[in-house]
Amino acid sequence: MADSAPALPLMADRFNTLRYEPGRVRILDRRLYPFERVFREYRTWEEVARAIVEMVIQGGPPLAYAAGYALALAAEAVADRPAAEQAAHLEAVADQLRRTRPTADDLHRLLAEALEAARRALDEGGSAAEAVARYVDGQVERGNRVARDCGRRAAELLPDGARILTHCFPGAALAYALYFGRREGKEWRLFASETRPYLQGARLTAAAALEAGVPVAVITDGMGAYLMARGEITHLVTAADRITLDGHVINKVGTFQHALAAHYHRIPFFVLGYDGPDPAAPSPEAVPIEERDPTEVLVWHGRRLAPEGATARYPAFDVTPPHLVSAIVTDRGVFPPHLIVRYFQEAEE
Amino acid sequence: MADSAPALPLMADRFNTLRYEPGRVRILDRRLYPFERVFREYRTWEEVARAIVEMVIQGGPPLAYAAGYALALAAEAVADRPAAEQAAHLEAVADQLRRTRPTADDLHRLLAEALEAARRALDEGGSAAEAVARYVDGQVERGNRVARDCGRRAAELLPDGARILTHCFPGAALAYALYFGRREGKEWRLFASETRPYLQGARLTAAAALEAGVPVAVITDGMGAYLMARGEITHLVTAADRITLDGHVINKVGTFQHALAAHYHRIPFFVLGYDGPDPAAPSPEAVPIEERDPTEVLVWHGRRLAPEGATARYPAFDVTPPHLVSAIVTDRGVFPPHLIVRYFQEAEE
Repeated sequence: MADSAPALPLMADRFNTLRYEPGRVRILDRRLYPFERVFREYRTWEEVARAIVEMVIQGGPPLAYAAGYALALAAEAVADRPAAEQAAHLEAVADQLRRTRPTADDLHRLLAEALEAARRALDEGGSAAEAVARYVDGQVERGNRVARDCGRRAAELLPDGARILTHCFPGAALAYALYFGRREGKEWRLFASETRPYLQGARLTAAAALEAGVPVAVITDGMGAYLMARGEITHLVTAADRITLDGHVINKVGTFQHALAAHYHRIPFFVLGYDGPDPAAPSPEAVPIEERDPTEVLVWHGRRLAPEGATARYPAFDVTPPHLVSAIVTDRGVFPPHLIVRYFQEAEE
Repeated sequence: MADSAPALPLMADRFNTLRYEPGRVRILDRRLYPFERVFREYRTWEEVARAIVEMVIQGGPPLAYAAGYALALAAEAVADRPAAEQAAHLEAVADQLRRTRPTADDLHRLLAEALEAARRALDEGGSAAEAVARYVDGQVERGNRVARDCGRRAAELLPDGARILTHCFPGAALAYALYFGRREGKEWRLFASETRPYLQGARLTAAAALEAGVPVAVITDGMGAYLMARGEITHLVTAADRITLDGHVINKVGTFQHALAAHYHRIPFFVLGYDGPDPAAPSPEAVPIEERDPTEVLVWHGRRLAPEGATARYPAFDVTPPHLVSAIVTDRGVFPPHLIVRYFQEAEE
């Protein structure tokens, strides 16, 4: 495994999994990947919104891009109406898209800016659809750069011989970190906690590791602390769906438990923070935690896991306080979590 | 739900799920329960041993009883041989049975005592099979009393309004605790963490709660800490596959993470300790932690969860240190974990 040449995992470049062209959006179905490489094609914004809710696409930035392209589809569909009517329609659509996944901040920022691009185009007599699509394309490019820079810094931090526990799929930044780590000749081992109920860890993280040439062992979500106690894990690394200005990390549910276990065992916890905290979220109270349909916990591939009469809960994210986080790694630098606001003082490179 | 009369869950009485009669052992298939109520019938000790490995039956005491009945089948099969030969054969069989599941102590103690019963019978010219079966029947009866007394004490400890997180299936003592709690009019809610990969929590604990009339919500193994942070959980309750003399609790993997989260949130963690610590295990170093086939993590009902090339780990148990445990509830009384050796000073009631 470690003898193969370093390769960039498919999901490092978001254009590999998500494409817009006039009239349609194509999205890699992440519920099936890596077992099947199926691209879904959507022709209306409503279809894309449903795909986001149903987790055809996941991860803060990718689902935001998909929502942006959905807005472009919505703009195309009303292009022959008066400008004011188009603008009003797009605002209503953006409102619906915002509700698909409430926790990650990328979606909110991107939709606000995409709407602004649409308004400007309409003011100048141009095409809202083209303006939105161009804006979102630019955001995907920017996001790819952010992921690469964040991943490169993470690869520098993680030493040769690291045995890294991850949770969920930490996205393109992890894919880049694995790629850069391999290129620097670092020998890592990954533990992917499977991340019930959608198994992003078992599927997406394991696939990215194998594509990069990094050996990976899948564990259930309850095994991390035991392996830490045995000295089998040296680092915990996850992404963040939202980081608040006071340094709280909101990420896939299960992250908090791993962080508690890492803190207890004095194992560093590095958060892949991409493009930093949400300037609009001073503290976790400002962040709604999505509660998804309990059926997703109770039923898997059509098979019930618990008897009729049992209910379930599915909070999709949890909140890790800053004192349990060792460092937040962003495209602009590495920050102690309590000082993450400094991200905004760093000039972009 | 809470209006229904209190009922004793099926699994409170081990005779409901496990029966021996000459020539065969019948075992409820716990991999299918509660979705299907299938009893498997075994006619050789090897078949029962395989059933234990494959988790047709699980839980420290129940699988020990099954192994004891397997020894009775083995004795039947060689009943026409000379006594010395029978005794040697039974020792070899017990050795194989001991290896089926190395972590729980019940199996080891029961097999040693069953062998002793066989030897005595053979010395007196009697039937080893009958002696073993009689001994194991007595152990099931004793175990049922232990579970009832332990469960009754737990029901006394847990206040009205408790919202109790459990992990795995804490066995007959939990079934009795739920029953006595309901009978005392206590309104509890149970959270059952599903317990991947075998889902004993989602299936067996949820079924026992519903049978007792206690509302139950299933969560994934990564959600406990988040619900504690929100104030939704007031108590953590699990069983123990082995308790060491210095107060360490060895239980289904995932327990340690819940214990860390409970400690962080100052939530009491009560361990259902049945008949106390293992007098032969001074500390956790004496306890082998079973590593099961990683395929059980990678494949579920014939479906791969992770891509080819990914490996997995499956340590079946973990170790919780005594300072994370609030109390150990046994048939003889409630003990601070550091003082669990006092169990042996308490007279049986």
